[in-house]
Formats: sequence, C-alpha cells, structure tokens
Amino acid sequence: MGNWNEERIRALSRLYRDYGQGKIDEDIKDLLEMINSLDRYYTTSSCSGRIQIAEVKYPWRKTEYVILGKWHRPVAIDEVLKCIKRGRRNVWLNVEPPIIHVVAKDLNAARDMLVLVRQSGFKHSGIQGLREGRILIEVLSTDKMEVPLIFGGQLLFKEEQLETIVCLANVLLTHGKEKLARLREALRLKIGHTSFS
Amino acid sequence: MGNWNEERIRALSRLYRDYGQGKIDEDIKDLLEMINSLDRYYTTSSCSGRIQIAEVKYPWRKTEYVILGKWHRPVAIDEVLKCIKRGRRNVWLNVEPPIIHVVAKDLNAARDMLVLVRQSGFKHSGIQGLREGRILIEVLSTDKMEVPLIFGGQLLFKEEQLETIVCLANVLLTHGKEKLARLREALRLKIGHTSFS
Repeated sequence: MGNWNEERIRALSRLYRDYGQGKIDEDIKDLLEMINSLDRYYTTSSCSGRIQIAEVKYPWRKTEYVILGKWHRPVAIDEVLKCIKRGRRNVWLNVEPPIIHVVAKDLNAARDMLVLVRQSGFKHSGIQGLREGRILIEVLSTDKMEVPLIFGGQLLFKEEQLETIVCLANVLLTHGKEKLARLREALRLKIGHTSFS
Repeated sequence: MGNWNEERIRALSRLYRDYGQGKIDEDIKDLLEMINSLDRYYTTSSCSGRIQIAEVKYPWRKTEYVILGKWHRPVAIDEVLKCIKRGRRNVWLNVEPPIIHVVAKDLNAARDMLVLVRQSGFKHSGIQGLREGRILIEVLSTDKMEVPLIFGGQLLFKEEQLETIVCLANVLLTHGKEKLARLREALRLKIGHTSFS
C-alpha cells in the first residue's frame, strides 16, 4: 500500500497547486474536496461541464481542433457570436457533460463509488483501469450537444435562430451541473456512514 | 462458476433468437460472434451505431422521446426530410456511436478486454458492474452529434444546408463503424493466442 499513499499524496498536491493557480472550476471544487476527504479515494482530473466553440472540420478527429471559446458557465449570445466571427471554414458548438476521474484503493471502494455515481445520473461511468492499489473510475454521463454552425465557409443556421441554439446549450450545461449537485448530496449522505469512507 | 455457465448460455440463446428474428444489426454480427466464441466472455446487448430523428424537447430527458426515424446505415436527405415533416414542435438529429455490453468471467478477462477495446478507439469504455462471475463492460466511444433541427415549431437551419448536416451525420456514423472494424481486427489477431481466449 506504499504506492497508494504516495500516489494519493502526489495527486492531492497537484490538486492543491491547481486550486492555488485558479485552474479548478468553482462548480466542482467542493465535490472534489468531498471525494478527496475519503481515505479510499483521490481524484486525478475533472471538468464541471463546458460549452465550447471550435474551429474543426470533424470534431471526432481531435488533432485539428482549435478552441475559439470555452466556458464552464452559461454563455451569452454575444460571446458566441464573437467566437464564430473568428472562425474560418468550419465551426462547431459543443456542450460537454461533467467528467471526474477518481482512483479507488480496492475493488470494494470502486464498487461503492460506481453505485453512487450511477445512481446520481452518471450512467456511463465505469472502471477504466485495473491495477493493484490503483483502480481508475471515469465518472461520466453522455448528455452532450455537438452542432455544426459553419461548414465549408457556409453558415448552416438561420442567424435569427442562433439564440435558440445557445439557449439549448445553456439548458444542457445546467442539466449537467444538476447531476454534480445530486452526486454532492449523495456523497454528503454517505460520508456520515463509516462504511463508505 | 455454475452461474457463469448458466447465464452465458441464457445470454447466447437470447442472442441467437434475436439473430433469427433479424434484430441484430448486420454491421456488428461477426464482431459479436467473435467475442462470444471466447469462453471468458459473452455479450448482452449492442448497437452498431445509428442516426436518429426524434420528436423531443430536450433529448437528455429520455422520457418524452418519440423516434421519428432510425437507421444503422448512412441516410439520404429525402429520408430525413420525410421524418422532419412528421415532427411537430421540437425535432433533433442524433448520431450515436457503437456500443457493446460484454460480460467477463473474472477480473483478468475484464482487464484484457478493456485494454483491447480502448486501443481500438473506444476510449470511454469501462467496467460498469462488478460481481463474482459477472463483470459487465460497456464498450463505448463518445463521438456523437446531437443537433436541434426544429425548436418551438421553428426550423433552426437554412433549408438548403440540411444536406450538409445529413452528410456530416453520415461521416460520423461511418467513423463509428470504422472503430468496429478496428476492434474486429484487434480481436482476430488475439484469438490466435490461447492466453486471450
């Protein structure tokens, strides 16, 4: 278990450094603190969900991706418009759900966390890596939007309807943040019980 | 291990029944056969990826979902147009990546499968359930499109650009099918090695 403790301390040090540098999204800070207060777990990376505008032909080809704008909060139509204008031939709007990577100490700990996150709406969560003292869980739902706005230099949408699209992106982003709140509440209830921590 | 054998036989019987009833998508049949030829695994459900048109206000609220059209192959613009016309107030176009649920006999088997599927491009795959003799793996990538076409009765896109959107949906669907082919090839190479089967 030497490795477990060392890796946990290293991960938490990185996290506190990132806190200090303002790199951790406010929306997810207290949830990370709750998870990391439990001896059997630590987090390695996270995102509280985001709206993103990118110059890219096909977003599933990650290599040609240029981010024009990124927000972890609802956006205003003007912010999106400003980004779109900086785009050239192909611009997509993307809403990503929250994601958290949690390392669990053993299979029992992993199982307990999996049940909890799935009950909180993160239905595509799973264990991604299995080695002694380091079981990596990805906490994820797959609610996302991936919408082409400009392709081949042509605006695909009616300009007067862009506001509707931005509004839908905001609704979906908020939906993801609500799942974070559900997970926070589920953890809060568990933390009182010693069998979980 | 009695349970393992019984559950495996039951799952395979269901699969062969579904084969017989034409319920299994041709694109994924041989891959399922390969996985199920290995003693340490069986599949419980799958989809080879699809393009879908649905009447729904917010697709992440699965409860109000009415499917207007669904294809496991590239679609023609006319097919999509016909569906859209049957929609009323809110219509979304959605492309889903392939998904396969695989049960593994033990942790070693699960670990081997996870490595293989992740290497084949299914980056969000993970173990979703852990119990003795039944470890459930979800094989998944999250490349998807989720595009609002009509909202509040208003067409959001320029009509002449719908063809571009349908074309992008077809490109993404094909991208998912290519991942299935990569997994098939990776499995083919493994099956010769007794340590894997």
